[in-house]
Amino acid sequence: MSSNPLNRRELLGRGGLGLLAFTVGLRGSASPLYADNSQASPDLITRQASPFNAEPPLPALIEKWITPVNSFFVRSHGDVPTLDPNELTLTVDGLVDKPLALKVSELAERFPADSTTATLTCAGNRRAEFAAIKKVGGVQWDAGAIGNAEWQGVRLADVLKAAGVKADAKHVWFEGRDQVTEKNITFPFGGSIPIEKATATGATGATLLALRMNGQPLTPAHGFPLRTIVPGYIGARSVKWLHKITVADRPSPNHFVADVYKLVPEENADLIARTSPIYEFMLNSAICVPTPDTAVSGDRLTVKGFALTNGTTGRSVQKIEVSADGGQTWVGAKVTSPLRDYCWVLWSAEITLTEKSNSLVVRATDTSGETQPEQCPWNYKGYQFNGWHKVALKR
Amino acid sequence: MSSNPLNRRELLGRGGLGLLAFTVGLRGSASPLYADNSQASPDLITRQASPFNAEPPLPALIEKWITPVNSFFVRSHGDVPTLDPNELTLTVDGLVDKPLALKVSELAERFPADSTTATLTCAGNRRAEFAAIKKVGGVQWDAGAIGNAEWQGVRLADVLKAAGVKADAKHVWFEGRDQVTEKNITFPFGGSIPIEKATATGATGATLLALRMNGQPLTPAHGFPLRTIVPGYIGARSVKWLHKITVADRPSPNHFVADVYKLVPEENADLIARTSPIYEFMLNSAICVPTPDTAVSGDRLTVKGFALTNGTTGRSVQKIEVSADGGQTWVGAKVTSPLRDYCWVLWSAEITLTEKSNSLVVRATDTSGETQPEQCPWNYKGYQFNGWHKVALKR
Repeated sequence: MSSNPLNRRELLGRGGLGLLAFTVGLRGSASPLYADNSQASPDLITRQASPFNAEPPLPALIEKWITPVNSFFVRSHGDVPTLDPNELTLTVDGLVDKPLALKVSELAERFPADSTTATLTCAGNRRAEFAAIKKVGGVQWDAGAIGNAEWQGVRLADVLKAAGVKADAKHVWFEGRDQVTEKNITFPFGGSIPIEKATATGATGATLLALRMNGQPLTPAHGFPLRTIVPGYIGARSVKWLHKITVADRPSPNHFVADVYKLVPEENADLIARTSPIYEFMLNSAICVPTPDTAVSGDRLTVKGFALTNGTTGRSVQKIEVSADGGQTWVGAKVTSPLRDYCWVLWSAEITLTEKSNSLVVRATDTSGETQPEQCPWNYKGYQFNGWHKVALKR
Repeated sequence: MSSNPLNRRELLGRGGLGLLAFTVGLRGSASPLYADNSQASPDLITRQASPFNAEPPLPALIEKWITPVNSFFVRSHGDVPTLDPNELTLTVDGLVDKPLALKVSELAERFPADSTTATLTCAGNRRAEFAAIKKVGGVQWDAGAIGNAEWQGVRLADVLKAAGVKADAKHVWFEGRDQVTEKNITFPFGGSIPIEKATATGATGATLLALRMNGQPLTPAHGFPLRTIVPGYIGARSVKWLHKITVADRPSPNHFVADVYKLVPEENADLIARTSPIYEFMLNSAICVPTPDTAVSGDRLTVKGFALTNGTTGRSVQKIEVSADGGQTWVGAKVTSPLRDYCWVLWSAEITLTEKSNSLVVRATDTSGETQPEQCPWNYKGYQFNGWHKVALKR
C-alpha cells in the first residue's frame, strides 16, 4: 500500500466529481480506447487481434516509472466486455459468515479508499525468446508485457472482513465477467491467491480491488469497472472485470489456475494437476534502449531498461549489470527511478564498446543474492522467461 | 404450482423438525446414496460410472406416478459435490436493483414455502434408439431418464422480486457448484431460461428453487442442498447444486446452454452458435411393460408405460395408442394416473395379439393435435428422441 493512501473523499473527488458524478462518471469517462477489441492503441504493438493482446515498443515503455495507460500492455483472453458499474454486481461467497452482494458502484461508499503502486507483468512476458531453444505456443511477447501503475480502490482485506472469513479458508478465487472460448467451450476467466495474500494489509503487498488506474477510471481493456491488483504476482491473478470473489479451502478449479499458468515440461494432464499454479513473478530485467534496429556509433553508449525482483515480500533489486562482451565483463547500472516493493525500477548504464562488441546483455541481482540465469530453462507453456536479456548491436 | 402449496411452517416442519433442526438436519438427513459417484443405486442401471449417470429399469419406473428418489434417474456432468447449506451461498446478480447473497439455509426463512409436482426428463432420454439410424455419442440412455416428483422449496419469482428485476431483463442464468471437465478445461455446469418462465407464478409452470424432493432433503446426486426445478423444460435447465442466479439480457454463455443442448445436424461451431438452446421437452411416450426380455404367452396382453406432452403451458396428453401390428391398427390406452400440467401420465392398455405380432409400438397425441412421429429425425447430439417406442415381443 502507498504510504499516503488517498482518503475516500479524494478517491471519489478526483477531478472534482462528487459521488454521483463518480459512479455515473465511471462510465462516461471511461476511455473508449480498446472498448472494441478490434481497436488497437496507436501506442501499442498488436500481438493478437482477437482476443486483443498488445504491448508497447520498448523505448516508450521506460519513458516513465509510472506507465501511462495508453502504453500499458493489454492481455485479454476473450472479448473486452462492456460493463456498467451501476449494473455489475460484486459477490463474495464461500467460506464466509455473511455473503455479500453489492453493485460495484457501491464499493467506494461501503469501504475506505486506498491505493497502491504495483507492477503488473504477464507470466508470458519475453515468451518469444524461448524460440532460441524451442518455440512455444501462445502470444509471442517481446519484453513489453509489463507496466507499473498507481491503482486506486478499496482493500480486498476490508471486503473480506465485512464478509467474515471462516477459519478454514485457505484461498480466495476471483472470477471475471469476460468470457473465454477454448476448444469451443465458453467459460469465465478466473484467478486465485492464497488467503494470506488476500487478507494482507499495510505495506506487505496488500491486494486491492481497483476502480482507477493512474487517477482515472479503468479503461475497458484494463478491466473497467473493477479489477483485482495483486502486487508481486503474475498479471493473470489481477483479474479484470471482477464480479465474483469466493473464499475456499483450495485453489480455484478455473482453467487459468488449474491448468494454464503452470511451469511444466509437456502437455500432460496428470503432471499439470500435480503442479502448483504460478503466483509471484520472477527476478527479471530487460534492455529497452537501444533496440536492435537502432544504429549505434562511437565507443560510448547509454543503455536503458527496467528490472524487477521477484514478487516475494522483502526483496528488492540490488544490482543491475550490463555487458558488451557477452558477459565476460560487466558495468553496473544506476537506478533512475524510485525503488519500491512490488514495483519495477528503471535503470541507465554507460558502457564502452570495443570493436568486438556485437551485442548487449543485462542481468539483475536481488537482495536475497539471486541473480538471473544466463539461460532460462525451457517450459512447455512459455512462462517466466528470465534469462539474460540480449540485444544485438547494429553498428 | 400445486393447488395446495405447503406453507412455510409445513415446509420447515416436515418430520417434526423446527427451523434449526431443518437447516442443520438438511445435512444430517441427506441420504449418503450417490454422495460418492462410484456408489451406484441398487435400483438404478449405471450407464456411466464417472460422472455418474444412471436410470431405473423400465418396469420399476412406472410403479408409481410419483417416482421414489431411489428410482429417479441421475444425470451428472462432473463429480457429485459435497455441500453444506450453512456454507453454500446463493447469489443473485445481473440486471437487478438489489443483488442478493444469502446462505442456502436462510432461503426458507426469507421466502414463503411452495411446492410443485413436475416431471424431469433428460434431453437425451431414449438416445440409444438413434443407433437404428446412426449411433450418436454421449450417455446411451434407454427410456428411463425420466421421473416425476414433488418438489418443495421457494418460488424463483419471489427471490427475483426481492432482488428487483430490471426492465431490460430477458433471461435468467443458473450456475451449479459442480465442476465439469471437458477437453481438460474445468468449468461449472450452467443453465438458462427466459425471464417469463423465471418470473411465472401460480399454475403456469412456475420455476421453483427446490430444497426437498418427495418430502425429504435432496440427495447429493439430485442436487443437495438446492436445485432449480423448471416444469416443462428439459432436465438440464433444472440446475443442481445451485449457487448463482444471474439476470441478463441474453441466454447464458455457459457451454451447456450455448453449445451442448441444441438440435444440430453436425458439429459445426457457427451453426451451433446460430441455433437456439432447447427449453421445453417434447411429446413422448414409452412402453415399460412388457420388456423385450419378458416372455409373453396367450393372445391378450396388458401393456403399460408413460406418456408426456411437450412442456408448453396449456397442453396435455389426449390420446395414447398401442399397436401390435407395427401401426396398422391401434388400441387406446387408459390413463391410470393423475393428469396434471408438466407431469407425465401413466397408462395401461389391453391388446390382442395375433400370430404375426412380433412387436408393440406406442404413440401419444396431445390436445394441440400433435402426434409423435413414427421416425424421429436424427440429430448429431442425440436429443429429444420421440419416435414411436417399439418393444420386440418374446413369445
